[in-house]
Amino acid sequence: MTIRYLTGITTTGTPHLGNYVGAIRPTVQASRRAGTENFYFLADYHALIKCDEPARIQRSTLEIAACWLAAGLDHEKVYFYRQSDIPEIPELTWLLTCVTGKGVLNRAHAYKAQVDKNTAAGVDTDTDVSAGLFMYPVLMGADILLFKAHKVPVGRDQVQHIEMARDMAQSYNHLYGEHLVLPEAQIDESVALLPGLDGRKMSKSYDNVIALFGPREQIRKQIASIVTDSKAPGEPKDVEGSALFQIYQAFASADETQKLRQAYADGIAWGDAKQMLFERIDQEIAPMRERYEHLVSHPAELEAILQAGAAKARQRATPFMAELRHAVGLRNLAVQAGPAKKDKAKSALPSFKQYREADGKFYFKLVDAQGRPLLQSAGFDSPKEAGAMVAQLKREPQSWANLTGVRAEALDTEINAALQELTSSGN
Amino acid sequence: MTIRYLTGITTTGTPHLGNYVGAIRPTVQASRRAGTENFYFLADYHALIKCDEPARIQRSTLEIAACWLAAGLDHEKVYFYRQSDIPEIPELTWLLTCVTGKGVLNRAHAYKAQVDKNTAAGVDTDTDVSAGLFMYPVLMGADILLFKAHKVPVGRDQVQHIEMARDMAQSYNHLYGEHLVLPEAQIDESVALLPGLDGRKMSKSYDNVIALFGPREQIRKQIASIVTDSKAPGEPKDVEGSALFQIYQAFASADETQKLRQAYADGIAWGDAKQMLFERIDQEIAPMRERYEHLVSHPAELEAILQAGAAKARQRATPFMAELRHAVGLRNLAVQAGPAKKDKAKSALPSFKQYREADGKFYFKLVDAQGRPLLQSAGFDSPKEAGAMVAQLKREPQSWANLTGVRAEALDTEINAALQELTSSGN
Repeated sequence: MTIRYLTGITTTGTPHLGNYVGAIRPTVQASRRAGTENFYFLADYHALIKCDEPARIQRSTLEIAACWLAAGLDHEKVYFYRQSDIPEIPELTWLLTCVTGKGVLNRAHAYKAQVDKNTAAGVDTDTDVSAGLFMYPVLMGADILLFKAHKVPVGRDQVQHIEMARDMAQSYNHLYGEHLVLPEAQIDESVALLPGLDGRKMSKSYDNVIALFGPREQIRKQIASIVTDSKAPGEPKDVEGSALFQIYQAFASADETQKLRQAYADGIAWGDAKQMLFERIDQEIAPMRERYEHLVSHPAELEAILQAGAAKARQRATPFMAELRHAVGLRNLAVQAGPAKKDKAKSALPSFKQYREADGKFYFKLVDAQGRPLLQSAGFDSPKEAGAMVAQLKREPQSWANLTGVRAEALDTEINAALQELTSSGN
Repeated sequence: MTIRYLTGITTTGTPHLGNYVGAIRPTVQASRRAGTENFYFLADYHALIKCDEPARIQRSTLEIAACWLAAGLDHEKVYFYRQSDIPEIPELTWLLTCVTGKGVLNRAHAYKAQVDKNTAAGVDTDTDVSAGLFMYPVLMGADILLFKAHKVPVGRDQVQHIEMARDMAQSYNHLYGEHLVLPEAQIDESVALLPGLDGRKMSKSYDNVIALFGPREQIRKQIASIVTDSKAPGEPKDVEGSALFQIYQAFASADETQKLRQAYADGIAWGDAKQMLFERIDQEIAPMRERYEHLVSHPAELEAILQAGAAKARQRATPFMAELRHAVGLRNLAVQAGPAKKDKAKSALPSFKQYREADGKFYFKLVDAQGRPLLQSAGFDSPKEAGAMVAQLKREPQSWANLTGVRAEALDTEINAALQELTSSGN
């Protein structure tokens, strides 16, 4: 089955080397995996929570989008869009708001952190807390659930938000029938947390960043200012705890890393090690710089790419949102009010379809009540063989995962549920 | 100037006689006032806060829309739309969410009432509080501010929500420049609060309602069950505290009311009084019933009216939302990032335009920085006369309200602010 991944970056700043290593490069690599669909978006509605500088949001959107493309994201293969171009996101936000308990949001880490800070300062708990900060998990839920994402790569601090999105999906499905896909957090431990110039995590708030697409001389100077110990040239140096070494490692092959390790042992001068680092980073970034600079200086080109991306994303979002709206009762009045989908499912069951293809072979597939394929068989030489496997699947629903000659087209849980439903209905 | 009024009805039930007298009839009457623009909407996003029955929301939307039209609302003269057909409403809701302090929402009456109830019951304060209930004032703010409504007719219990909408508009304007119009609550004391069958306020939750468009026999029975005292025919009866009398009064002319008052004094039998009431109500409602029944049984006609209404409302909402999005930084990347509007206002001031019309007379108008008219003069015989009044307005900005020959085209506060700005800039 196709697994859908979704990643957003909040558009409040200029991407630095830490963003590149921690977020941009891994998503670009991940986007090339077979059997996946990938959704990448510029989270400008999220930016409004913490940034009231319009020009900065506009500039950051431009720069982050240009970074992603310069780093090799193929915008025609993935879904690449600006959050605020998808009106279905705030619409779904409201629907989810109505199925989310306020108590759940009270327990969100980001909100609680601010409350704790206020309590410590002896002021009212909600001082300087905007409704935006409080509602942020619901907007994030809409981002994820609108595109039926299965996996959301996040840092540990974001796991709670994915769990909240699952809860929202479950509440919605409980009230209105099975429409929303339950997402999972994917914590990728292998993604490097790049240290900054002072050895702490590279972050704009620590003022310890290395620019990503800044002028080469600026980057050279920043690298020159990486904090090291005061060992003289010729003295052996320790790779342990060396920010310079860790940054190098994030760009180098195993072989190259080994060479620098040796050079440390051999007493390389810090100046030379910094030059090596500058050259290694430049080797990876330089080929992207031209495309980045082109895009940033041709914002209309980027705008066209984003608008095409929004149109593509809305091909998914618009019909799905229509389904979600209908389910809650926001309906075309002329459409006969039928039973809710959870009732309908009782009459319209999943079913097996058997058929013959142009290759002369006999196939079957399992489709859900709406005709969406769940399982697809290989071709059999006779209809009897195909029928025998269908009978087997009805008899032992759990066996499909071990059968050769049948391929999953949907989530395992969906297939299991459909087969179970068929079996228990006696069809 | 044109005053914009806005009213929404939440689509969770079947309209009864109390809704008709308290909400539907007065809005229909108000919609005919000259010099007003009127926005009437079916608040189905609000319905989701308290109703998870999709078919009920759909049916209620149909019935309330049909009621409004049957009661004489001219959907071509007013803005008549379904809230969920306007994607700009949830979009603006998010923008407002980001400028609203959470502390403000903590103090909303509806939320606090639930908290008090929970506290009294000894359970967690946020038990059974959905984020929808908590965020309701922000959605309502978006309803109002999107259409630049000046006046929102509400009951006393809703005044706080209008004040919150004002606060949201002020916060937004403070951060992003003067875009949003500050609304005012309009409390119409003359609108009758209709008593129900038992004398308490007519409300579905008290199960004391009289149907509006139900079968005539049902209505007759309901009226027959109005609680009265046990005075016999011939005994004089008291109009004070008589629900029957109050309901009659809500439909009758002063003359008719006087006649019933006399009949009470003369000892009319309760059965006869009830018959009088039934006939008086029927006289008003019967002519509407056919249209109501037609619409309810032809939902496609109603749907077409609502969709045309949404298109008309979006002619206002879409360009305004584009302005609001641009102001916060959700921008087309190809558009040069200019200074924020509040900066722009410093260079682009309001100004007086003097000109001659086809009638040969000399006019002037005061326009704001965006060219929107604020004041419009009458025609003068000479340019000198027009110029003298302009000079007078610059000298004494506050004098405009007392001058003949000049007409307000915007809110008083806007005109005062513009004149003040002009004067203090020395232009």
